[in-house]
Amino acid sequence: MKEKMLASVEAGGTKFVCAIGDEKKNIVKTIQFPTEDPESTIKNLLDFLHPYKNKLEAISVASFGPIDIKLDSDTYGYITSTPKRHWENIDLIGPLSDAFSCPIFFTTDVNASAYGEMQARDKDNLVYYTIGTGIGGGVIINRKLLSGIGHLELGHNYLAKHPEDVNFSGVCPYHGACLEGLASGPSIEKRLGTKGENVSSDHPIWDIQAYYIAQATIQATLSYRPEVIVLGGGVMGQEHMLMRIKKHFECLLNGYVQIPKIDEYLVTPYYDNNMSATYGNFSLAQSLISEQ
Amino acid sequence: MKEKMLASVEAGGTKFVCAIGDEKKNIVKTIQFPTEDPESTIKNLLDFLHPYKNKLEAISVASFGPIDIKLDSDTYGYITSTPKRHWENIDLIGPLSDAFSCPIFFTTDVNASAYGEMQARDKDNLVYYTIGTGIGGGVIINRKLLSGIGHLELGHNYLAKHPEDVNFSGVCPYHGACLEGLASGPSIEKRLGTKGENVSSDHPIWDIQAYYIAQATIQATLSYRPEVIVLGGGVMGQEHMLMRIKKHFECLLNGYVQIPKIDEYLVTPYYDNNMSATYGNFSLAQSLISEQ
Repeated sequence: MKEKMLASVEAGGTKFVCAIGDEKKNIVKTIQFPTEDPESTIKNLLDFLHPYKNKLEAISVASFGPIDIKLDSDTYGYITSTPKRHWENIDLIGPLSDAFSCPIFFTTDVNASAYGEMQARDKDNLVYYTIGTGIGGGVIINRKLLSGIGHLELGHNYLAKHPEDVNFSGVCPYHGACLEGLASGPSIEKRLGTKGENVSSDHPIWDIQAYYIAQATIQATLSYRPEVIVLGGGVMGQEHMLMRIKKHFECLLNGYVQIPKIDEYLVTPYYDNNMSATYGNFSLAQSLISEQ
Repeated sequence: MKEKMLASVEAGGTKFVCAIGDEKKNIVKTIQFPTEDPESTIKNLLDFLHPYKNKLEAISVASFGPIDIKLDSDTYGYITSTPKRHWENIDLIGPLSDAFSCPIFFTTDVNASAYGEMQARDKDNLVYYTIGTGIGGGVIINRKLLSGIGHLELGHNYLAKHPEDVNFSGVCPYHGACLEGLASGPSIEKRLGTKGENVSSDHPIWDIQAYYIAQATIQATLSYRPEVIVLGGGVMGQEHMLMRIKKHFECLLNGYVQIPKIDEYLVTPYYDNNMSATYGNFSLAQSLISEQ
């Protein structure tokens, strides 16, 4: 009997993380390579997948964005208006479809992470945020990814300013002081002239960041009423952050709606090293097979 | 053959608007009465419905809130933590279930309006806001009402302050300067000492209100990616408001994601006098019958 394999492609702005899994979602092979120019990066991806060509049952690609996920669009499968140099209007799925005959799922990186966390935690309604170089979110409602005429862009909502941060104009090239403009990794560097990893854990900047991230979790609470909100990404690697965010969250919500216990409600990822996206991809790939 | 009838109950904080419709959703009888103490108000409701007792196939109740819509909850059908006096922890659906044997749907007032607007406009993904004494929103995704562990509370998200409004602390008893605290009707009265209907249309307050409402439509855009956002409620009765909101919306979005043409995207209700909620209720009631 033919071995059945699934492929996960996590196309990040910094690196691609790819994995081959068997039908039980055990990882049999992985690779990471930097996100360089589109041509050589996509060639690396095809080279990695090629040996599994006849075994792959489905591929799921989770990409940085914005991306075009509308199945009936002329630019379906493209990375569209990204600020990442050379990657604007790049067809990511086309070269895969040309090389592989199996079905291919295409979604945002945060959607795949949200899906993986949903599976791991067995929740029906979940929100996943990544807070790092950029900020984005994926939402699961009734065990399905939420989207409308395009994918969500939770990193670009506007927020109330922290009283000690009123003069900071933010770093988002589109919106200045939106969530990504105020709370992403680069916002710390812009304010302090050094990266977050070099800033001591008792610096007041962390409380300002936590205030903004807490507002994002308030938005998620009121806009989706999820069972759990998962906070991932580099900024959350600072272990004191989660506690700070919980404190601001409780002040800001002020008991207005019922939520689960805070320690079960605001959490960091189940999987280390963003394996949520890989396992999410495997599940999304598998869902394509069961649809057939 | 027995006549088949549907009932719509719009339980507002100021008045109840009730209607009986035939199976083609033609309105055959309506009544309005003020929202007084729960006992006499619910008695008025039961008295209105009683003559149709043997004809009613389904009832849909759309209520001010917060309300408990969790079917497995001990307080399902209750108005819960409302700031409205005497209405906290009031069982609204229980007395109806006791008196009528037909199925009863229970949702928020804005959800029923969203549902009615969806039907009228034939859209799959739609957001409806009411901006009046309070602010709330209902969301339709794939022609279904969106909820998680409870109904949405879009009126209580935090916002960036308008530069000419930084010292205003807002009127929300829970959150101060949230959307409802900054842009509801009472926020105008708190700032100016008179109701909005007495304020001239060129007063700078309208542009401040529009800035906040535009931020709400940005949140809806990024959080749901709908096909259309409908803005109803008393504040939107000011005809110049929609134009102001569109102007701020376009500045704030800054082309980040694709939306339909702005004049088809940000709109006022299809129906006058909030008939969206009545027709939405009829459709929601009908959906209970087809489920059986």
